Amino acid sequence: MGVARIAIDAMGGDNAPQEIVSGALKAAREFQQLEIQLFGDQSQIEDLIGENKPANLQIIHAAEKINSDDEPVKAVRTKKQSSMVMAAKAVKNGEADAIISAGNTGALLTAGTLIIGRMKGIERPGLMANLPNVSSPGQSWLLIDAGANADSKPNHLLQYGIMASAYAKAVQNKLKPRVALLNNGTEASKGSELAKAAYQLLAAEESIHFTGNVEARELLNDAADIVVTDGFTGNAVLKSIEGTASTVMGAVKNAIVNGGLSTKLGGALIKSSLKSTMAAMNYETAGGAVLFGCHAPVVKTHGTATADTVFYAIEQTKTVIESGIIADLAARFEGDFAKQKQAQPVSK
Amino acid sequence: MGVARIAIDAMGGDNAPQEIVSGALKAAREFQQLEIQLFGDQSQIEDLIGENKPANLQIIHAAEKINSDDEPVKAVRTKKQSSMVMAAKAVKNGEADAIISAGNTGALLTAGTLIIGRMKGIERPGLMANLPNVSSPGQSWLLIDAGANADSKPNHLLQYGIMASAYAKAVQNKLKPRVALLNNGTEASKGSELAKAAYQLLAAEESIHFTGNVEARELLNDAADIVVTDGFTGNAVLKSIEGTASTVMGAVKNAIVNGGLSTKLGGALIKSSLKSTMAAMNYETAGGAVLFGCHAPVVKTHGTATADTVFYAIEQTKTVIESGIIADLAARFEGDFAKQKQAQPVSK
Repeated sequence: MGVARIAIDAMGGDNAPQEIVSGALKAAREFQQLEIQLFGDQSQIEDLIGENKPANLQIIHAAEKINSDDEPVKAVRTKKQSSMVMAAKAVKNGEADAIISAGNTGALLTAGTLIIGRMKGIERPGLMANLPNVSSPGQSWLLIDAGANADSKPNHLLQYGIMASAYAKAVQNKLKPRVALLNNGTEASKGSELAKAAYQLLAAEESIHFTGNVEARELLNDAADIVVTDGFTGNAVLKSIEGTASTVMGAVKNAIVNGGLSTKLGGALIKSSLKSTMAAMNYETAGGAVLFGCHAPVVKTHGTATADTVFYAIEQTKTVIESGIIADLAARFEGDFAKQKQAQPVSK
Repeated sequence: MGVARIAIDAMGGDNAPQEIVSGALKAAREFQQLEIQLFGDQSQIEDLIGENKPANLQIIHAAEKINSDDEPVKAVRTKKQSSMVMAAKAVKNGEADAIISAGNTGALLTAGTLIIGRMKGIERPGLMANLPNVSSPGQSWLLIDAGANADSKPNHLLQYGIMASAYAKAVQNKLKPRVALLNNGTEASKGSELAKAAYQLLAAEESIHFTGNVEARELLNDAADIVVTDGFTGNAVLKSIEGTASTVMGAVKNAIVNGGLSTKLGGALIKSSLKSTMAAMNYETAGGAVLFGCHAPVVKTHGTATADTVFYAIEQTKTVIESGIIADLAARFEGDFAKQKQAQPVSK
């Protein structure tokens, strides 16, 4: 394949366009085998880039932007000239291989599904988040669906497991990624009707290494490489982990700051160790979450993304494109698609 | 009402019977207006109590016990002479007003539902856990259902909100407890089909102060006094919070222990501040979780409960009994029960 081409929504996120442009610029300079398309306000972006714009970085003017509080479906439908919608259309039209945005998550998921479109055979694209494995610093695990679909069926969870397993092999170089089902107990008989049915499907799927149920308590401690769940639970778990980590670290900081002189002195002494602990907990450094199951990767970085986060997300997306995983998955799910088509006349 | 009578499973939990008996003994001595019934191995319990057994503490011999890895329903059905089943039967027979156990959670929920039985009008008893409010140390919030029922209907969530609100008023002395629905966004239109339908019911219920949706990220930061959700999500959120808090605190500890001399020195200096931070995060000190919606409170303390945890759970349970909340709820749900009975002939 040729050079990877990434469409970037330069106007989405709390620190847009400054940090987005800055991260994109760094990536364009570092990776010659990469084409970056920045969608957003041309004059603002030009001012940020200044002289010496790299040849592999293009600016495509977008007159509008989608705000974080816009109603997602409405925004995608009505803001045709927004940076996000225009970037998604570039992917749909085959002018780019992936889209990255730090903007409105709901709108990005909508743009992925409505504009870029589902892969044939995929019933629901799932949002896959990369989270830290605290027992093995530097390692990470994937949570899918982290919140794309509030209501799910057993087969959606099976497809999440297959997609994430392929990703872990092709992009993260894990030879035999452990796929587990999030459940309220470890025994096979545990769970909701959905979890019980999904367990059976995952256990019967030969293309993945299914290791059974995991409980939410163990997630950060190397419980699995991939944790599959429905998007409502996944969203709640992701936000519980982020919220608790940030609250606990905040409480530790406060305890130090509000302590007496010796506590403050102690705090100063352990500062650098605490910083690396915090970094291990920071899922921003892991680059972003990917909506998987569309015709192209739809990458969401944190709303608070900095230039480094954006750079890392671009690097990760480049790896995904170059791995060829999208074509592999398309081939894999063609079979499911054929089966679904066969089944349709009967159910109609 | 007379003296509160509490049936305690002395053999359940990792530290049973020692810590259970020790906590019960302390409570019997501290509260004269309390009758404690300890179910378990008579000779073991007598040895632990030694001389001077308080008059308000009885020992009822139970020849068996339910283990933590026993299959819940089977264990409750077959181990008739177990300490947990005998304690539940004492409640059912009107000889005790509540049961406390640190043992097998599934078995306790089963014993509550099958032996003690649902309150008339309650469709599903819900497990209510007391969790710390980290922004306001000493304050707490209630999560219901924390895992009793893996599959739920909108009306179950409404009943959880009503029960927990009554508890917060009667037991925690909160005048106007804020009831919120856990959801994947704050807007009213957000969520799964279940969450959307539950939102409508909660918003229309006049006996509670419903404040709308909350996201899992805000739970520890005074998001609400009561957070309502289905038991599958509630279980995942509870365990995510516990697991993350414990993992992060462990990582902070490790960073200190494995650091250089100055880091170790710093760690020693901040030790006491860290300890109080940890205590604020420790949901054991909040006493336990209550299965609400049975004819009597079914109280679950942590499997690792110590004498202090047990003492605190007894004190909390005594308050619940003395508040008269169970009779109030029974009166409240009689109306729902009448409506359900009326509706039944039509649906049959």
